[in-house]
Amino acid sequence: MKYFMGPETWQPMVEDIEAAGHQRVSNIEDAEVYINNAPNPRRIPEMPANIGWVQHCYTGVNQFIDAGVITPDGVPWCNSAGAFAQPVAESALGLALSQAHHHKAFAQAASWSVAKELDESQAWLYNQQGPKRVAIFGAGGIGKQLIKLLQPFGVHITAVNRSGRAVEGADEVVPMDQAESVWGEADFIFCILPATKDTEGLIDAATFRAMKPSAIFVNVGRGSTVVTEDLVAALRDGDIAGAGLEVMDPEPLPDGHPLHDLPNCTMTPHMAASAHVAQYHLGAIFNANAAAWERGEAMPTRVDAEAGY
Amino acid sequence: MKYFMGPETWQPMVEDIEAAGHQRVSNIEDAEVYINNAPNPRRIPEMPANIGWVQHCYTGVNQFIDAGVITPDGVPWCNSAGAFAQPVAESALGLALSQAHHHKAFAQAASWSVAKELDESQAWLYNQQGPKRVAIFGAGGIGKQLIKLLQPFGVHITAVNRSGRAVEGADEVVPMDQAESVWGEADFIFCILPATKDTEGLIDAATFRAMKPSAIFVNVGRGSTVVTEDLVAALRDGDIAGAGLEVMDPEPLPDGHPLHDLPNCTMTPHMAASAHVAQYHLGAIFNANAAAWERGEAMPTRVDAEAGY
Repeated sequence: MKYFMGPETWQPMVEDIEAAGHQRVSNIEDAEVYINNAPNPRRIPEMPANIGWVQHCYTGVNQFIDAGVITPDGVPWCNSAGAFAQPVAESALGLALSQAHHHKAFAQAASWSVAKELDESQAWLYNQQGPKRVAIFGAGGIGKQLIKLLQPFGVHITAVNRSGRAVEGADEVVPMDQAESVWGEADFIFCILPATKDTEGLIDAATFRAMKPSAIFVNVGRGSTVVTEDLVAALRDGDIAGAGLEVMDPEPLPDGHPLHDLPNCTMTPHMAASAHVAQYHLGAIFNANAAAWERGEAMPTRVDAEAGY
Repeated sequence: MKYFMGPETWQPMVEDIEAAGHQRVSNIEDAEVYINNAPNPRRIPEMPANIGWVQHCYTGVNQFIDAGVITPDGVPWCNSAGAFAQPVAESALGLALSQAHHHKAFAQAASWSVAKELDESQAWLYNQQGPKRVAIFGAGGIGKQLIKLLQPFGVHITAVNRSGRAVEGADEVVPMDQAESVWGEADFIFCILPATKDTEGLIDAATFRAMKPSAIFVNVGRGSTVVTEDLVAALRDGDIAGAGLEVMDPEPLPDGHPLHDLPNCTMTPHMAASAHVAQYHLGAIFNANAAAWERGEAMPTRVDAEAGY
């Protein structure tokens, strides 16, 4: 297919697309498909009639739906769902282990004097006194990859998704609307929920109080799913043992925010699915969508503007 | 068997031993075997003639050999080799991921302003542009467990051990005396070497210069295998990208030591195989040694006082 890529040129992606036989054009008027790598909707042009569909280079589309750029009856958009399964799963496991073993607390203390206290309060993922219970909220492509990384630790995995359909490698699957009890049973909680009306502020003071005081909460989904001030209080008051955050609300997290100071809050600045990472994965996603489009089939990562992802 | 445990009582270990039918006695004179959980040789009594062998509750024995407590013709000692495979492997993977994704650097900066720089310089373990090359120096029981944790990342694993004998899950095995080139080929280097005369100061300025500038070096073996000032210089000068250290030289690492300040040096204070962790694992080790002793067979973790481990 003839494609236009903008506003930036992602060279590794261009190479992967070229290898599949598609042709890059320099005028949007000559293209059949628009590849957008602008992360926010302000830089999206009106689509000319020759554009059959849009490949978006990120996963989250709620801003684009809110801005009226993606609509139920407009040009079809595809997102990058599934592209970031490996990097985001790696980010999630790293945050969990780093927080469990107090890397930030030791870095902040910069003193061996805390060694005994850290040793006795560290958490282990491996099966030491029975399998650790791990809950994965929003178990889609990232969750499946995370399960692969978790399996050698001998953990018990509860996957939570909307439908309750089976998830490969999970010991049990619970539908979201019956997951109330899951928060309190887990030693490690991974949130990979998208930003939708249903998930906004879902994890609040009551949710944190329901968790074990020894629980480690990891968020690699969207910051808006968590009430940040409630998380700060939960970490300060010991409602939970620690948090690992790749996403926060707000982003960028302001300098001086209390999360920076908390020794039991390990963070990365939303960089597991950045443009820098995306350029190595989006070629394959585009090629799969383009192949489906050419065969007249449903495109694998087509956005459902009404569902919000 | 009748055993005496000292100087401390490790309750979870006592329970595991009792479950195997052995009997605890409160006087060393009534015991057939001595279980020592003192971490240094100053607190070891003379062994009365009724003591047939000693179960040591840690892995490292070089201090005990140097102090003349363990000798080639004395009472046989067994160590805890293999007991810490799971916790030390978990510690190693956690340090590698935490350093690769700049958890300490972001914690020290406490500012989103470094996000772009961290994103572009972070390392990934998963197969992004080809499999990452991982080298494991000293691939015994811990190494085998670490390989299990690394496999789902799709890495290429080079195991280095003295004999060059096969290691389950490794893509290749190189004997230690032919491993010169391995340092320079690896993206992630895990050191699990014991403290012996051969390994003391093995990893020095020349070794770090041989590594890739993008390499991440993780030490979960013994601090004495690394020349600390050379590591500090290598981290400052960019000879390598980062380090993850569970062991250091000296320990405890003094307050104000430059390793504390370096944003590319992630550390834990030697707590992956602590007494707190050991008590959950040593019962099984003791039971296996006791069973072999009663059958007149070689005890699985018997120390070779001449080899030094």
